[in-house]
Formats: sequence, structure tokens, C-alpha cells
Amino acid sequence: MLGSELLKRKLSKLNKNVIVIGIDNLVLGKKKFIQKELKNKNFFFFNIDLSKKINDKKIIKIFKKSLINEAWLFAANSDIKLGSKKPEVDLKNTFLSTFNSLQLIENYLNKKSKIIFSSSSAIYGSLKKKLNENTPPIYPISNYGSMKLASEALISSFSYKKNIKSFIFRFPNVIGRNLTHGVLYDFKKKFKNKNKFVQVLGNGLQKKPYADANEILDSMKYLINKGSKFVNYFNIGPADRGVKVKFIVNEFKKYFPKKKIKYQNKKYGWIGDVTQYHYDTSKMTSKGFKFKKKSSNTIRKTISEILLK
Amino acid sequence: MLGSELLKRKLSKLNKNVIVIGIDNLVLGKKKFIQKELKNKNFFFFNIDLSKKINDKKIIKIFKKSLINEAWLFAANSDIKLGSKKPEVDLKNTFLSTFNSLQLIENYLNKKSKIIFSSSSAIYGSLKKKLNENTPPIYPISNYGSMKLASEALISSFSYKKNIKSFIFRFPNVIGRNLTHGVLYDFKKKFKNKNKFVQVLGNGLQKKPYADANEILDSMKYLINKGSKFVNYFNIGPADRGVKVKFIVNEFKKYFPKKKIKYQNKKYGWIGDVTQYHYDTSKMTSKGFKFKKKSSNTIRKTISEILLK
Repeated sequence: MLGSELLKRKLSKLNKNVIVIGIDNLVLGKKKFIQKELKNKNFFFFNIDLSKKINDKKIIKIFKKSLINEAWLFAANSDIKLGSKKPEVDLKNTFLSTFNSLQLIENYLNKKSKIIFSSSSAIYGSLKKKLNENTPPIYPISNYGSMKLASEALISSFSYKKNIKSFIFRFPNVIGRNLTHGVLYDFKKKFKNKNKFVQVLGNGLQKKPYADANEILDSMKYLINKGSKFVNYFNIGPADRGVKVKFIVNEFKKYFPKKKIKYQNKKYGWIGDVTQYHYDTSKMTSKGFKFKKKSSNTIRKTISEILLK
Repeated sequence: MLGSELLKRKLSKLNKNVIVIGIDNLVLGKKKFIQKELKNKNFFFFNIDLSKKINDKKIIKIFKKSLINEAWLFAANSDIKLGSKKPEVDLKNTFLSTFNSLQLIENYLNKKSKIIFSSSSAIYGSLKKKLNENTPPIYPISNYGSMKLASEALISSFSYKKNIKSFIFRFPNVIGRNLTHGVLYDFKKKFKNKNKFVQVLGNGLQKKPYADANEILDSMKYLINKGSKFVNYFNIGPADRGVKVKFIVNEFKKYFPKKKIKYQNKKYGWIGDVTQYHYDTSKMTSKGFKFKKKSSNTIRKTISEILLK
């Protein structure tokens, strides 16, 4: 989802000599999200599974012509639930994809090269306190969270070795028109089908912040000029405490008033579900960036976009 | 090295009904370290490469008879230098070995099962401040350190999912009679050969704490009864600030007075070498455990042991 939005932005204001390479396994991502962009002469798309070692001669040929300016590492399994059942999924698609991406670019960097990594609030586990970038110790509770933390660790030593800057952005829940997974994606399916009931995972009281995909990209663009260390961490997202699953359910009910809702009698939707977190984004705001939309507004906007398209 | 020492201890006071399983790829470890133990009827040794998924029917059969009481995860590449050149080595032998070990034991645990993991001071990178368990943020600078941090992350979510306790011990440099790598191992080779000169990696001013393998095991044995969380972190080691490489060189010179020493004109021995660190072991001492030998004494004792055997 985020990759396609980033691509549109990059290509819209590209210096003629700059080349953009996109790599995706097209398991969750879809070619139709980037149909226009695929025709752009400065863009090269590779349908490659980054969980395996990459030896693609075409990519290497491009890298040999011109070194890498920015590497945006977004490849990850984003289905936290699935990774909880099948740890190999997070191992391959979240961790090994990061490992192989770094191996792929290793020899084509210069001192100004930047790595930008989409980490996650999941790396904090379910600590009760307000989570800022210095929150210790870190105890992820989902396999997804641990593979993200593992990837962060890897990026740290890589940046040190190569003497370049990395930017690690810890996302809250991110939503947008090209959703491929997550609570809104699931509810869209469940509300649109013919069943009388919508089954909610958990008791509906899970409360999380939601960020708009485009605001996430805005914040990243802004912050990649605000770090001086070899690894720079940022929690990014809106300043509010988030919204409950019940709030989202009620927003959907406005479109499907006849549906009945069934909640489960347990706090979490699945093992490793962080039911609440208090995200401290003050490092980001201290650098001069604020999210415009609150979680509630982002939820409303995205529901209307995904239902009306 | 540590595994063989642990095995001797476990077998020496074993309840007749308890079975000990040892798994090692015998790349650094050697069967001769456990020759006596291999004859013990309660011990089963498997020469298996944990970097690959494990489906050994004999092991599973043992697990099915009786659930796992303690899982000591020591499998790791301990050659930090090598991992810096070849990241796949740390990926396989440090990270995937942890991943596969957890997958192997996952279905044979009960609520009292404990996981004990040998982490490393390397996960802190080269932060200047005194390093305690709450030191944030964490920036490993070696591939070894990042794979250790990655493994810690994995153990965290695993313990949460299985509702068991884990103990993560961050080792300083650990030395003992059955050394397989490291500065003493290298120096033994370099001092014993016929060259006139001994080449030291770096300027000799790298200063690190050293712990005796048996004291490491003592501290772990003590501390695995002192944790109440699902993941319990401990920095373990002597309280002193460590000794310089030059100190170690001079100790070797007592045995080989004619050797000449060559130092390099750079601070570190290799990229990712943490040249100094100030290890805070107060969490350990607050629980009631102290190391008896200082780094200097451990160095002296081990040099005499490895040269005289």
C-alpha cells in the first residue's frame, strides 16, 4: 500500500537522470496500484521475492551505473495475526527481506546514501507506559514485532559498517485507499457480505492510533533531513490516544445499519495483539512535524474511500 | 566451550529420570570436550546444524515422553570478526539457530519451562555511557550484536506467546580452558608459532571485561530463579572496567619473553569491534550475585590453562 503511494510521489517530481527501482513479491501488493507508473521510463519494477538472496543481473546493472541515493525498505509481512500462527512468514517476509535488501545494496552506496525503514510500534510489545524512542527495555509480544526489532538491529550494524545514515520509522496502524490487510480491510469484507452478523475479534475495546498513509510519507520525507546519527529512530503518527475497535464498527454501521455485531469475550483479537498503547511522538514534533488528521478522522476518511471505490 | 562446561555440571547432579539433550554442529565445539559425558545414559547428543529447520524424529520422541524443563540456547557464531565480513554466518548460526531452536521446542513446553539465552554486550553497540539493562536506545555496531539483539526480540515474543519465562544473559567476553575463538585463542597461536613477531589487531588499547566460563554458569544458575517477568534481562560479568589488549599481550610475554610485538595504528581490531565499554552489572548484584575473579585474574588463569594443557 505504502510503496505504491511513495512511488507516485517520487515519479511526480523526478529529475530526468534519476532512476527508481521497485521490488515487490506481489503477494499483498498489486500491479494495478501502479499501472500508470509502470509506463514511466525512469521506473523499473521487479517482481522478486526478497526473502531469498537476490542476484538479479538487471538490478545490479542499474546499481553499477549509478549508486543508491535512498533505499526505502518497506518489504514486510504486515499480517501480524498470520505471523503469530506461522513464524516462518515473519522470518521470511519481515526479517530475511530486510537482510537480503541490505545485502543487495551493500556495495552500491556512497556516504550520502540513506536507508529508510518502516518499523513498527509493535517492537515495544505491550508496555503500559507512554512509549517514546528511549523506552526501555523493549519486549515485543508478536512475532511481527520481534522481527521488526530484529530488522532494526540489523540496520544499525549495517549503517555503522557502511558509514551511512539510516532512518527507522516506527509506524502506528497505517491505513489508506489501497489497503491490503488490517482491521478496515477485514471489516469491509465482513460488512459487505450477506451474513446477518459481523464477528469482531476481541471485545472491541482495543484502542490504537491510526495514521493516514500519505501523512506517514509526509512525515518521513520531512524527518529524513533531521537526523545526525548513524541510526535515527522516530515514532511517527497522530498525537491522540487512538480510537477503539467499537468506534470503527460504529462508523461502518453508518453504511450498513442493518448488520448486527458480535463481540468476543476477550481483550485481544489474537495472541500478540497489542490491545492499547500510548505512543509518544514528541521526538517527531520537536523536530517540527505534526500529523494533521486525528485517528478518528483518518478512520472516517479511509472507510469512505474503501467503500466507495 | 560453555555448552561442554554446562553439560558436565548438569550430568554431575542429575535426577535419574531427567534426560539431557545436546545439539551442536561441531564446527567450533569438539566431541573431545564431552568424551566422558557421551557415555552417560541420560545424555543424548545430536550433531545437527540448527541453522536449518529441525525435524529430527529421535529428538521429538524424547520431547514427547517428557516436556522440556530448561532450554539453554547457546548456539551462535562467536567469531564477531567473521560475521562482519560474512553476514550470512551470523544470520545462520546466531539468528536462525535461535529461531529454529524455538520452533523445535515450541510444542513441548509447560508453564514452568524456562528458556536461558546467551546474549551479549555487543547488542549495545559502542555507546559511551555506562550500560545497564535499561540503556536505550540500542544500536549494535557488529553483525554479531545485531543478530543477538534480533534473537532477544524473537525470544521475547515467543515467551509471551507460550506464557513461559525467559532469561536473557548478556555476556561480556567469556574465556575458559576449552576456548574455540577470541583474543586468547588467537594469541596462543601467534605466540606459539615460529615467527619472530606477534601481530596485534588494533593499537592494543581496546579495553574489555573478561569473565570466567564457570563463573558465567554460576551467575546464570543463580539468576534463573530471580526473574518474575516473561523476559528477564541481565548483564553479567565482573564489576571491574576490564583490561587492555596490551595487558593480555604482556601476560603472554611472560611465557614467551623473546617475542616482539607489532601493534596496528588504529583503535579497533576490525569493523564492529567495540573498543571499550562500561558494563553495569548492578541489576545482577542487586539480586545477590557477584563475580569473584576480576578480569585480570581471569585472563591470567586462563592463559596458564590453555598454554599448559
